[in-house]
Amino acid sequence: MNEERWLLPAGIEEVLPPQAQIVETLRRDLLDLYAGWGYELVIPPFIDYLESLLTGTGQDLDLQTFKLTDQLTGRLLGVRADMTPQVARIDAHHLRRDVPTRLCYLGTVLHTMPDGFASTRSPLQIGAEIYGHSGIESDAEILRLVMLTLRTAGIAESYLDLGHVGIYRGLAQQAGLDAAQEHALFDALQRKAIPEIESLIGRFGLSGPIADMLAALAELNGGDALSQADSVLSAAATPVREALDYLQQLAEELHRWLPDVSIHYDLAELRGYRYKTGVVFAAFVPGWGLEIARGGRYDDIGQVFGRARPAVGFSTDLKGLLQHGKGLDRLIRNTEAILAPWSSDPALREAVDRLRASGRTVINALPGFEDDPRQLGCQQVLACQDGRWEPQDIGTIDNQ
Amino acid sequence: MNEERWLLPAGIEEVLPPQAQIVETLRRDLLDLYAGWGYELVIPPFIDYLESLLTGTGQDLDLQTFKLTDQLTGRLLGVRADMTPQVARIDAHHLRRDVPTRLCYLGTVLHTMPDGFASTRSPLQIGAEIYGHSGIESDAEILRLVMLTLRTAGIAESYLDLGHVGIYRGLAQQAGLDAAQEHALFDALQRKAIPEIESLIGRFGLSGPIADMLAALAELNGGDALSQADSVLSAAATPVREALDYLQQLAEELHRWLPDVSIHYDLAELRGYRYKTGVVFAAFVPGWGLEIARGGRYDDIGQVFGRARPAVGFSTDLKGLLQHGKGLDRLIRNTEAILAPWSSDPALREAVDRLRASGRTVINALPGFEDDPRQLGCQQVLACQDGRWEPQDIGTIDNQ
Repeated sequence: MNEERWLLPAGIEEVLPPQAQIVETLRRDLLDLYAGWGYELVIPPFIDYLESLLTGTGQDLDLQTFKLTDQLTGRLLGVRADMTPQVARIDAHHLRRDVPTRLCYLGTVLHTMPDGFASTRSPLQIGAEIYGHSGIESDAEILRLVMLTLRTAGIAESYLDLGHVGIYRGLAQQAGLDAAQEHALFDALQRKAIPEIESLIGRFGLSGPIADMLAALAELNGGDALSQADSVLSAAATPVREALDYLQQLAEELHRWLPDVSIHYDLAELRGYRYKTGVVFAAFVPGWGLEIARGGRYDDIGQVFGRARPAVGFSTDLKGLLQHGKGLDRLIRNTEAILAPWSSDPALREAVDRLRASGRTVINALPGFEDDPRQLGCQQVLACQDGRWEPQDIGTIDNQ
Repeated sequence: MNEERWLLPAGIEEVLPPQAQIVETLRRDLLDLYAGWGYELVIPPFIDYLESLLTGTGQDLDLQTFKLTDQLTGRLLGVRADMTPQVARIDAHHLRRDVPTRLCYLGTVLHTMPDGFASTRSPLQIGAEIYGHSGIESDAEILRLVMLTLRTAGIAESYLDLGHVGIYRGLAQQAGLDAAQEHALFDALQRKAIPEIESLIGRFGLSGPIADMLAALAELNGGDALSQADSVLSAAATPVREALDYLQQLAEELHRWLPDVSIHYDLAELRGYRYKTGVVFAAFVPGWGLEIARGGRYDDIGQVFGRARPAVGFSTDLKGLLQHGKGLDRLIRNTEAILAPWSSDPALREAVDRLRASGRTVINALPGFEDDPRQLGCQQVLACQDGRWEPQDIGTIDNQ
């Protein structure tokens, strides 16, 4: 097995220099962005009791979660596959504030299986949440942060896909579907499997306008889906109409802040349907099939932790952002390092300390490796002239 | 189980605001410190094939490592319990440089069991390593970084405990101990179990100077252990004398850089004996029994990854540093937040963008929560006077 000791499991990555420095700088830029908007950082634990991790999130997350046995108690632990439930617990159980609370987080999560071909099993999840406010303003703020996050990561071109779980939920209620039927149809909708959807509608004994509306839902997507829905879903009950109106208002609010934002709609897009309660969204990069960020409203997520509060948020994979960002080499710290001789001469030490404090990198020469500063990544060396140590370009030294 | 959903497993921590901000700021300060010395950041994976993680590190790490089954391959994975072997692999397999390579790393590691009473199972490990140089200079540089790390974390008082595996290894060889005997005596030495040490020495049939020297080793610790060793170990063979001389030189070099450093010696301290090859050290905070940082030289760690290079490094737990650091509240970002009304007035937006760009936190007022800026942590509100939006103290507003 010796020759395989450097192999990594599929979908598990290590990040080497200088790429790791780009990850670190982007991490800081994003956390600073969120801090500037009033989002407070929280650091949820990497492992947790399984029932805490899976609360309210449904079976998908269960299958994605690595299980461990706690040797102290024999209880089942999980490695977090999503930090959102942990952040909800922090809001509901620890902070317990009466005013809106903005939280952000960043950390590795693990998935037992990759999401798609060649995709990661260890995303570096970063996200932000607003607890304690329900309405256009908090939804719009989160969507503005999504777009700012992409821009900070050098992703200039992207579009938003908006949906609202109230539309399908309202139609299912109007049709009188039971839980099993609602779930079966939901499943077919996610796959946009039109023949299966039509067959299910027939099997459920539905006909007339409600059958037509459910059948039409899978095709209500694109930039003009809302105006199409006006006529296609005209026979829908009040909750469905309210959800459509809400999406319209949210899009208008968003355009006030981001006139150039490109908004698509997908009224059958219901990722996280079981725990989402309002708007759902994803951000996409043109030409790449998978979403780059996602989120939505999940108003009761804190309930199992003792306190239901409105909640809306988004998350993304920082390493995924880097795959699509342009011009990120600018995030590499000034690499013009300076080589300093190994000596405890106080004047030299003072010069080294001063340069490092100013943000320069100063590398101590180690015996046997003084002769080739360039191989060590140094473009300058510290040299003494008239009792003062100053950085000098290597060329200058060579010519002396 | 509902009422327990907020409980965390023993030894597993979450970090809340504003403590999380202190963690983040200290993290940045330390990584910037290492970058200024030329240490390049690497990000090893959180899980790895078990044989990669346990390479050369012995049984202790095996017991500390959570095991997982890879659902893609059926192979055994481990959650990293120590990032050092992963960093060694990066040096040996990926970077493959001929010159000294300085690497640093930071991340959560998990342990199946806590190290001691009330201690963590999820340290935030941070460390630095030099590959490719063997000698006083690289050992001293790493020790200087240990002390700078503690100082950056607000730990002014600490002392270093130095040892050298060459001393016991040389004595064991001189005594002709076989591997099992060497291990049994090593084990007793770690526990400083004097009667057991003496009984083992007798059972191994040792007598004369070598028996006396092995028996005395457990008590060779403290500030003057080196000078004691001069006489106590005077009959030792050359490798032991060389190791003693080396420690003496290293201490002198270190005093040149850090005149105030407090150095103790523990010539029987052999943590990581199986893979360490030279100096071993730990840093302690007075009045706290457990070490706060540790490290040493382990020259062949890269061999199983295809390339043996000299290596020396240290690591510590960033959350552990915070428990002992003083004055860390200074690391909390300016929390004088400003509340801005929810409005897309271009002049307001420009003011908000400008304030955020200057490092201020500006929180958007959400409908229903505009009236109590203080509850949202705001000491100022953005108010419009003569067409300009400027932050105003809340008191000023109240009095208008």
